[in-house]
Amino acid sequence: MDMGRVDVDLLVEEITREVLGLLREGGAGLPGVDPLCLACQGQCIGKCSEKVRNIVEAGASRVGAGLGVSPVARELAQYIDHTLLRPEANRDQITQLCQEALQYGFAAVCINPTWVRLCAELLRGSPVKVCTVVGFPLGATLLEVKAYETRRSVRNGAEEIDMVINIGALKSRDYALVQDDIEAVVMASEEEGAICKVIVEAALLTDEEKIKACTLAKAAGAQYVKTSTGFGPGGATTHDVALMRQVVGREVGVKAAGGVRTLEDAKSMIAAGATRIGASASVKIMQEAASPFNHS
Amino acid sequence: MDMGRVDVDLLVEEITREVLGLLREGGAGLPGVDPLCLACQGQCIGKCSEKVRNIVEAGASRVGAGLGVSPVARELAQYIDHTLLRPEANRDQITQLCQEALQYGFAAVCINPTWVRLCAELLRGSPVKVCTVVGFPLGATLLEVKAYETRRSVRNGAEEIDMVINIGALKSRDYALVQDDIEAVVMASEEEGAICKVIVEAALLTDEEKIKACTLAKAAGAQYVKTSTGFGPGGATTHDVALMRQVVGREVGVKAAGGVRTLEDAKSMIAAGATRIGASASVKIMQEAASPFNHS
Repeated sequence: MDMGRVDVDLLVEEITREVLGLLREGGAGLPGVDPLCLACQGQCIGKCSEKVRNIVEAGASRVGAGLGVSPVARELAQYIDHTLLRPEANRDQITQLCQEALQYGFAAVCINPTWVRLCAELLRGSPVKVCTVVGFPLGATLLEVKAYETRRSVRNGAEEIDMVINIGALKSRDYALVQDDIEAVVMASEEEGAICKVIVEAALLTDEEKIKACTLAKAAGAQYVKTSTGFGPGGATTHDVALMRQVVGREVGVKAAGGVRTLEDAKSMIAAGATRIGASASVKIMQEAASPFNHS
Repeated sequence: MDMGRVDVDLLVEEITREVLGLLREGGAGLPGVDPLCLACQGQCIGKCSEKVRNIVEAGASRVGAGLGVSPVARELAQYIDHTLLRPEANRDQITQLCQEALQYGFAAVCINPTWVRLCAELLRGSPVKVCTVVGFPLGATLLEVKAYETRRSVRNGAEEIDMVINIGALKSRDYALVQDDIEAVVMASEEEGAICKVIVEAALLTDEEKIKACTLAKAAGAQYVKTSTGFGPGGATTHDVALMRQVVGREVGVKAAGGVRTLEDAKSMIAAGATRIGASASVKIMQEAASPFNHS
């Protein structure tokens, strides 16, 4: 165990130095450059206007989830976790969220653990995933509680787990605890058959801390890093998305969440390297995307 | 089980009708009336200025925790849960919180579960309790997760558990779930030897919902009801404290938390019926209380 610690500590320091160096040199590989199209595996809507135009002109249609939604909007929808995490959300609102997710073909609904079972029932047989949150939104509970919350949520039907890191431990430079905490949830997710997104709550972190958190998340085997809870002092920024993409490379996804309220916001995040968007205003974004004025 | 449900449902309806009736009639038994001095068992600082003056003039001193603090301030301190729940709080800040709690003789420190073990070590042998939060601040996780978080926290050294109700279930009129959820945490607390405070997040509720939540908390055997998490859209109000005191009677405590920033705030809450105050600005409040200008 101690050997593993030392290795990760060294790795964190090395990557931190490297990425901070790149940032200082003017951001090679940072937002607005071509590799991002590779990073999102050719699905990049924000930049590939040529591709988008081709799809629209081809006029292809799809059946099943997302019926009636234009192909370009359908592609955008697959980036979006349709999100409702307000504690006062009631059963009717959660039901509506699921109906909208089916209608527009969103990637997932993102809801609190208490609603997982309901959403799993409502979305059964559809491609829309059930995503829930763990240790949310403060991330300041015990790792065994986060792991238990993960297992119970997946058994209730969650397929994606968005966990919050132990921010206080990171601020205290207790990287061993940050690592153990992420690993406990990634491992529980994997064992139960779910994927795991690691929320770093970027608005509370320095760039160096963001890099450290993303490095540890990648080392733990997380499928995504995620910018924000939506309950912190700030949401996703293109700076953070690009920085996180730089740290995790192409193999790990980046989810931009918090304050993504317009089609323009969503495009900016995707252009910066996001492969998933968390949004409450998803229907509004889709309506904007459906307008012919927004296709170039 | 079903019989129990029906009884509680009836009880909730009955008390709701009764208390709402009292409110409509102009608030008999509501804030500013004498029974509140009984409610706080004669320790009422906000109203009993005569008693406070006597203590000050007697010039009594105490030893142990709170050494060097005047008796009147010492009495106020015993109302206060010295609170630091920000997710980015680090080890040094939590350590300082405990030192301040010892210095002023606060009732407890209130911190996230990840810090319970550290606080229990730092406060060992002192009268200052370790209070932590469960299902916090959204209250929207599974009841078994809340119960597990409670057990783990108490085993790490927590003596008081501030849990958040399932607000979404309350809003969906699923009172059975609200009840089960509170009971699971109260029972886990009791079994492990801790007391339980039930946070209703009043700013998100109608008066009727506040009454329902407090009734269920009292029926479940909670030691306190608590107004707010400090992370919601609003903190404690004297209206809510008085309303909650009216519902739970004298046997259950009322903790006013969120936005209590001055001595004046604290006195108002106590006058309205609060028997515990949750505050981050506790040291500032104590410094105000130490000033001779604030003793009448």
